[in-house]
Amino acid sequence: MHTPHPRPLDLLARELAILDTTTSLLHWDAETGMPPRASAWRAEQTAYLASKSHHLLTRTEVDQWIREAMDECDPSDLHSLSNLRLWRRQHDQASKLPAEFVETWEKTTSLARDQWVAARASSSFSTFEPWLTKLISLARDKARYLCDGGATYDVWLDLHDPGVTCQDVRDCFGSLVPELRTLLSPAMATTRGPDLLSEKHPYPQESQVKLNRAVLDLIGFDWEEGALALSAHPFSTTLGPCDSRITTRYTEDSFLGSLYGTLHEGGHALYSQGLPKNLHADPVGQAVSYTLHESQSRLWENIVGRSQLFAPTLTSLIASHFPQLADLSPSDYWRACNKVEPSHIRTEADEVTYNLHIALRFEIEAALFDGTLEAAGIPTFWNELSEKFLGIRPPDDANGCLQDIHWSAGLFGYFPSYTLGNLASAQIYQAATAANPTLEPALADGNCLPLLRWLQDHIHSHASLYPPQELLLHTTGARLHSAPFLLYLKKKFL
Amino acid sequence: MHTPHPRPLDLLARELAILDTTTSLLHWDAETGMPPRASAWRAEQTAYLASKSHHLLTRTEVDQWIREAMDECDPSDLHSLSNLRLWRRQHDQASKLPAEFVETWEKTTSLARDQWVAARASSSFSTFEPWLTKLISLARDKARYLCDGGATYDVWLDLHDPGVTCQDVRDCFGSLVPELRTLLSPAMATTRGPDLLSEKHPYPQESQVKLNRAVLDLIGFDWEEGALALSAHPFSTTLGPCDSRITTRYTEDSFLGSLYGTLHEGGHALYSQGLPKNLHADPVGQAVSYTLHESQSRLWENIVGRSQLFAPTLTSLIASHFPQLADLSPSDYWRACNKVEPSHIRTEADEVTYNLHIALRFEIEAALFDGTLEAAGIPTFWNELSEKFLGIRPPDDANGCLQDIHWSAGLFGYFPSYTLGNLASAQIYQAATAANPTLEPALADGNCLPLLRWLQDHIHSHASLYPPQELLLHTTGARLHSAPFLLYLKKKFL
Repeated sequence: MHTPHPRPLDLLARELAILDTTTSLLHWDAETGMPPRASAWRAEQTAYLASKSHHLLTRTEVDQWIREAMDECDPSDLHSLSNLRLWRRQHDQASKLPAEFVETWEKTTSLARDQWVAARASSSFSTFEPWLTKLISLARDKARYLCDGGATYDVWLDLHDPGVTCQDVRDCFGSLVPELRTLLSPAMATTRGPDLLSEKHPYPQESQVKLNRAVLDLIGFDWEEGALALSAHPFSTTLGPCDSRITTRYTEDSFLGSLYGTLHEGGHALYSQGLPKNLHADPVGQAVSYTLHESQSRLWENIVGRSQLFAPTLTSLIASHFPQLADLSPSDYWRACNKVEPSHIRTEADEVTYNLHIALRFEIEAALFDGTLEAAGIPTFWNELSEKFLGIRPPDDANGCLQDIHWSAGLFGYFPSYTLGNLASAQIYQAATAANPTLEPALADGNCLPLLRWLQDHIHSHASLYPPQELLLHTTGARLHSAPFLLYLKKKFL
Repeated sequence: MHTPHPRPLDLLARELAILDTTTSLLHWDAETGMPPRASAWRAEQTAYLASKSHHLLTRTEVDQWIREAMDECDPSDLHSLSNLRLWRRQHDQASKLPAEFVETWEKTTSLARDQWVAARASSSFSTFEPWLTKLISLARDKARYLCDGGATYDVWLDLHDPGVTCQDVRDCFGSLVPELRTLLSPAMATTRGPDLLSEKHPYPQESQVKLNRAVLDLIGFDWEEGALALSAHPFSTTLGPCDSRITTRYTEDSFLGSLYGTLHEGGHALYSQGLPKNLHADPVGQAVSYTLHESQSRLWENIVGRSQLFAPTLTSLIASHFPQLADLSPSDYWRACNKVEPSHIRTEADEVTYNLHIALRFEIEAALFDGTLEAAGIPTFWNELSEKFLGIRPPDDANGCLQDIHWSAGLFGYFPSYTLGNLASAQIYQAATAANPTLEPALADGNCLPLLRWLQDHIHSHASLYPPQELLLHTTGARLHSAPFLLYLKKKFL
């Protein structure tokens, strides 16, 4: 018996995976280890690899290979069919983008990051504005290349969440925002109390690192195939089939930011670590959508990490790393880590106001893509929307429109995935605990592995076998809807 | 006026530089941040990029481009002539290697690293032996492809130090080894004394990191274009025109290993940081040889870092990081950091015995390439040579033939560069201080910058404009010889 020759699409998949994971390493290193003046050359490197990748994916033979594979495919082989459907999507999308555009896009987003970091540090929107103008212009170009005459914002949403449109998101916020605004006051009352954690600072960074590592152990993060590092803006990334890494950031006056950042990014990493390794280079082996990715991160960060059920475990772990908190009770800790209150920074927002932060960003992006807003108008519009949704105005742009890394990295249309991910997380958790009544007792004992196993079996291991809405339907019996999330918040805060 | 089109060799240089610096990042990350199970995929990545690089460099057009550029070159343009001479060397060497060999070589050396780490940790030569056999076989193949019928070890020496032959190294050790053996006893007597540093351990890693950063500041390391990290085996690497990084390792019972590791690798980084940035992608813009590279690292590590002149500055810096050493005198510190005594680990050896460690490795490599030694025979031969040169036998292979990373990384013929670099460092320092009598008074004041400036002007900035022996002749008025090094040791220890 001899091994058959790998088919051309399999060879291409391997080559693209090598280029893409190498690009991911270039980005990871830029955030975690690269010295400041290295960024110009780094932009050359990422642009070069992106061009190579684009060139490989758009060769005319690829179209032919997909057709041939389709013709040869057994119609009952769902796996191969899904894989070819995704190849088709990838090839067709890439083919609509000119090579020069791909290089310019990659170089600009790579260089813009430094500009954003500097602008945020000095809260100087005006220094970032020309870069943002350029990024928005390129993002509109990209959407125009891809849109086939449809709405350009829809293209960006679809890139992260296949099938989701601007109208879907508008409808979602249309019902969600009033409910959240109604919930706000009672939830603030429920979680009001003395600030027990701030009183006891400082929390040395070294101890926070140890705590975060212990929490990652607890949720089942695999250190043989992952790492935790420090960066200015927390993120997670996949550098290969056995290499899922996350970052967090530290301030010594509170450990909550680094801890919940770790749980959030750790949730992303658990999804990556649960993807089928034998398919890691295939389109069908990738995470299915950003909504589903965020559902995993928000589930571990909030539904588990901020639950009453898990509070005793977390409180005793925290006390073992910070002796000054030896007397902290689980209920006091629960209140401290759930404090509901309008605030400026999205990543540190509570579960009620978080989605209002996203609603604000959605309005801005929608306006950018329907052409009614330009970069120069963002700060004013941001502050008005902050007043409208959260009832507060940022003291400066560092706490307002400069706070997020996304636009500088070319991530437009990403923010809605956070809210859709929140909805999905509640829907999935409801389904999981209904299907398996032992999950919550295990969590109460500090044992996260049964829940992780369930998520692996019902979400992670399927990768992109089904379209995202279909996967959710399979897993939870319903398409994405907001009822489970609102029920969850009401049970929690009322 | 318009910019002329870049010539094909310039475009190729840029492309190769992108691929090579990206490969360097893949290696850097493998040593500093990669989780354990990621190594198999990492080997795929490095093999892929090496293949691409080899493919680009060996295309038949390249030969034609070099010829055309030679024809067009102004005979008085030394810079372009040198660049084309080096292009010719690179292209011809690469063209002699089959593509499959390049991929196998890259994959094997990438995977062998893990095997070496594990074997050293358990001091188990037998688990590494099959890998070493494979590596030696590939190294012999590589040399046979490149040698044009000459001696295979000469090829490996020439790869690191253009022009150096096995006979050159044999002649060098022939005179050096007896001199060093004669020096050993008196130097041991000079540096004998109570072990003042060990008595005062532990030295917390965090403080060692701060000390190392302060020492790098002192010697002029540019943090805007460099970084310091932790790895199992210290090394330095260049990831781009503005990105020179180094690693060190820590044990809390002594800070000397991490400090002198940092000075050594820092010396390499100063050379890289001093290369002309506008030529970073050109063959003529690279470091000229490993001997010259090691001359820079050994100069900062030993001639400066272990000098009486610099001891007051270093002692007070050390005391400011380790309060338990507040009473340490510069002369006591000088004795502690210069203690001469045969020992097992090369990287921690004193200046007299260090070159005996290299003589041992040279004998082994020479025997491997003349075919009189195979992997299985290395431990016995190593231990015999250790007895012969150093008068001691390693207690196990971890302290013997498994101690160095080099062979597992495919670095054969590298070790002699350390000794040749030691000779060059003394010769260069002698020339520098003779030419500029203010350098040593500045060093005595803790000011390293005049010396660094001299090295930048006379070594670093020339990159590969001249062949290495010629550069040394220009800079010091003599070809490489051992008299300045022996004079230096005798003045220091007698």
